[in-house]
Amino acid sequence: MSKIEPRLLKGFRDYGPSDQLARQNMFAEIQSVFQRFGFLPLSTPVLEYEDILMGKYGEEEKLVYRFKDNGDRDVAMRYDLTVPLARYIAQNQNQLIFPFKRYQIAPVWRAENTQKGRLREFYQCDIDTVGTDSILADAEVIACLCFALEAVGVKNYRVRLNDRSVMAGLSVAAIRALDKLDKIGIDGVVKEMTEKDIPAEEIEQVKNLIGSKSAPVNVVTLTELIEDFGVSGKVEFDPTIARGLDYYTGTVFEIVLSDQPEFGSICGGGRYDNLVDKFSDKSVSAVGGSIGIDRLIDALREKGSLVKPEVITALVLNLDEKFNEQYVKLIAELRNAGIKAELYFSAEKLDKQFKYAESKNIKFAVIMGEAEVQRSRVQVKNVKSRTQEEMDVGELIEYLEKKQTP
Amino acid sequence: MSKIEPRLLKGFRDYGPSDQLARQNMFAEIQSVFQRFGFLPLSTPVLEYEDILMGKYGEEEKLVYRFKDNGDRDVAMRYDLTVPLARYIAQNQNQLIFPFKRYQIAPVWRAENTQKGRLREFYQCDIDTVGTDSILADAEVIACLCFALEAVGVKNYRVRLNDRSVMAGLSVAAIRALDKLDKIGIDGVVKEMTEKDIPAEEIEQVKNLIGSKSAPVNVVTLTELIEDFGVSGKVEFDPTIARGLDYYTGTVFEIVLSDQPEFGSICGGGRYDNLVDKFSDKSVSAVGGSIGIDRLIDALREKGSLVKPEVITALVLNLDEKFNEQYVKLIAELRNAGIKAELYFSAEKLDKQFKYAESKNIKFAVIMGEAEVQRSRVQVKNVKSRTQEEMDVGELIEYLEKKQTP
Repeated sequence: MSKIEPRLLKGFRDYGPSDQLARQNMFAEIQSVFQRFGFLPLSTPVLEYEDILMGKYGEEEKLVYRFKDNGDRDVAMRYDLTVPLARYIAQNQNQLIFPFKRYQIAPVWRAENTQKGRLREFYQCDIDTVGTDSILADAEVIACLCFALEAVGVKNYRVRLNDRSVMAGLSVAAIRALDKLDKIGIDGVVKEMTEKDIPAEEIEQVKNLIGSKSAPVNVVTLTELIEDFGVSGKVEFDPTIARGLDYYTGTVFEIVLSDQPEFGSICGGGRYDNLVDKFSDKSVSAVGGSIGIDRLIDALREKGSLVKPEVITALVLNLDEKFNEQYVKLIAELRNAGIKAELYFSAEKLDKQFKYAESKNIKFAVIMGEAEVQRSRVQVKNVKSRTQEEMDVGELIEYLEKKQTP
Repeated sequence: MSKIEPRLLKGFRDYGPSDQLARQNMFAEIQSVFQRFGFLPLSTPVLEYEDILMGKYGEEEKLVYRFKDNGDRDVAMRYDLTVPLARYIAQNQNQLIFPFKRYQIAPVWRAENTQKGRLREFYQCDIDTVGTDSILADAEVIACLCFALEAVGVKNYRVRLNDRSVMAGLSVAAIRALDKLDKIGIDGVVKEMTEKDIPAEEIEQVKNLIGSKSAPVNVVTLTELIEDFGVSGKVEFDPTIARGLDYYTGTVFEIVLSDQPEFGSICGGGRYDNLVDKFSDKSVSAVGGSIGIDRLIDALREKGSLVKPEVITALVLNLDEKFNEQYVKLIAELRNAGIKAELYFSAEKLDKQFKYAESKNIKFAVIMGEAEVQRSRVQVKNVKSRTQEEMDVGELIEYLEKKQTP
């Protein structure tokens, strides 16, 4: 039989146990902050009818994964979590109680250019408050995202805040050009606008915008409210923040790492009061934001701030397979007491068994050979220091409980 | 502008906050059991090259979602979590330390016939132990799945255990027919075999199998070991369990709910020692199993065993928007103390605000009006009983901490 080469699609990756544990820990921390702020989870499907997604993302929409399914329907994989939310809101408008505050932590797919190191499958952590135009909702969303970032170990960051109103009169093409300022500089922005035949007055307006220092009054109010929500000294007015997506209508913001600006914006969002309108006659206001968790993890890893989690506390070594029944009963007793423990299945060389323990970051080895079985005792060995102590099973449980990370 | 009708694809659904909270709680419980048993998480992509998936699932493989991506590659959405695991093992064989024990809790996609009420997107909760042929691994996988089921509230269930060896000599077509016994009965099985021109001796063997009572020795040993792992009185030999998928080679099992058999098998798995071979010259043994969580949730809901989770503890009511700054500071203080709390953004009728609290299962309303602001006090109202107490903010935090579910 010919073998199939085991390989991954470009832009897709596996996350092995150590990476995935770190990711899951971060998801759990972020989720806990979101819930503390009163956001509850919503789950929408990966596949949507194509027309639900198309026409919402501007020039980026060529990156949407689209295909015909087995029933010849035009379907698309979700490109973000915001448009499916708008579809959900429109579809359930009459049953929902507003404001509707939801979070969703889930992957999205974009056929990005992988040469820039971009992934085609990546997670977003979104919160949105739908059904209120109160500026308190804008402030809470931004504050909540800041608290979530802090919960996963981000210390030095800036919230760059703007309002789409400062771009009043600018065409979509001009806003899209402005959005690229960080990447292509002011000359690049002007060049793109000139090439796209944008009128000279608009180009002038964009140039003035880039140089402007004084924030409009709603940005000042919003900044103060974010401080009241407990985020101090992090927010600054930035008239150049545009956000590429077409659907924003008011507040727009991005969060960048002060000492790792090369990672770009790790969080962004804004107010989008017209998106639900695409699916419904009733207008519904909304504001939200999203943490790009994969980029954030890369940044934390580079800084050495990603902790290697200890998940399994003890490995019961296999000294002789004739004791398998005793081993199994011991491991059952440990687990019933809530100890995260493993049994090595075969009586291989102890070196190999210790190597296994180290590979899974297991701190303690439990040894039960002929002598110990006779006396109903066990030896507990510290895998790193190789020091050991003898005790009975009751003492073992107590000992491991104390050492176990919750 | 013409509206796009907000709608879902057949076989796909949204999970609103209350359903999704229940699901997430179950995932967390199951994950915690999996980790206690020493399984660590792995995450593989949703999309794979088509040839990775095809040729592994037997006649079911027509249900795989396949398409050409933007780069004209033949890609497929994952159909289960087992074949991608085999691909991962083959691809990383030289770096991994065996036995490799992993769990994955993630959605899969199958273009099922939706007329039977089947979903096309659903979650699987998988554990697998790869790289050992020890029967201890089979026993541990099955015991771990039982503990996971018990952790989410399943009490009455049976593990139906078999070994593919009892089917030695049977063709794939005969095994596939046998696998449908529960659905089509013995006459249906015989009919299907006859229609498929399966030789009379094979049909005879299948009939004998269905009637057979005495378990082969390895099934007896395995049953005892599962008991030693702490699962007692749940396992029975069932010679008719075949599992439809082609890749099983030894142990096969299914778990059914004793008092809700109509939900079919809510968990199943077995040993598959040749799957990694499809991608690699080195053979790697493996055993695993999977909980079909969506079916299980339906069963628990029907029984009334799904708890409605309390996530948010308190809602700060908005009596007058001139106090917004005080409200925001109060909510920030509560959240900093770890209280899951929300602020109502606008000073709407109190009835509407209480209705909001009820919709999110929030137990306490915090009231701060003119009189309370003057005296730096708050009223705490029980949303259900409408009884209330006055206290200061320090007392409020202490009070809510005690009432909060962890």
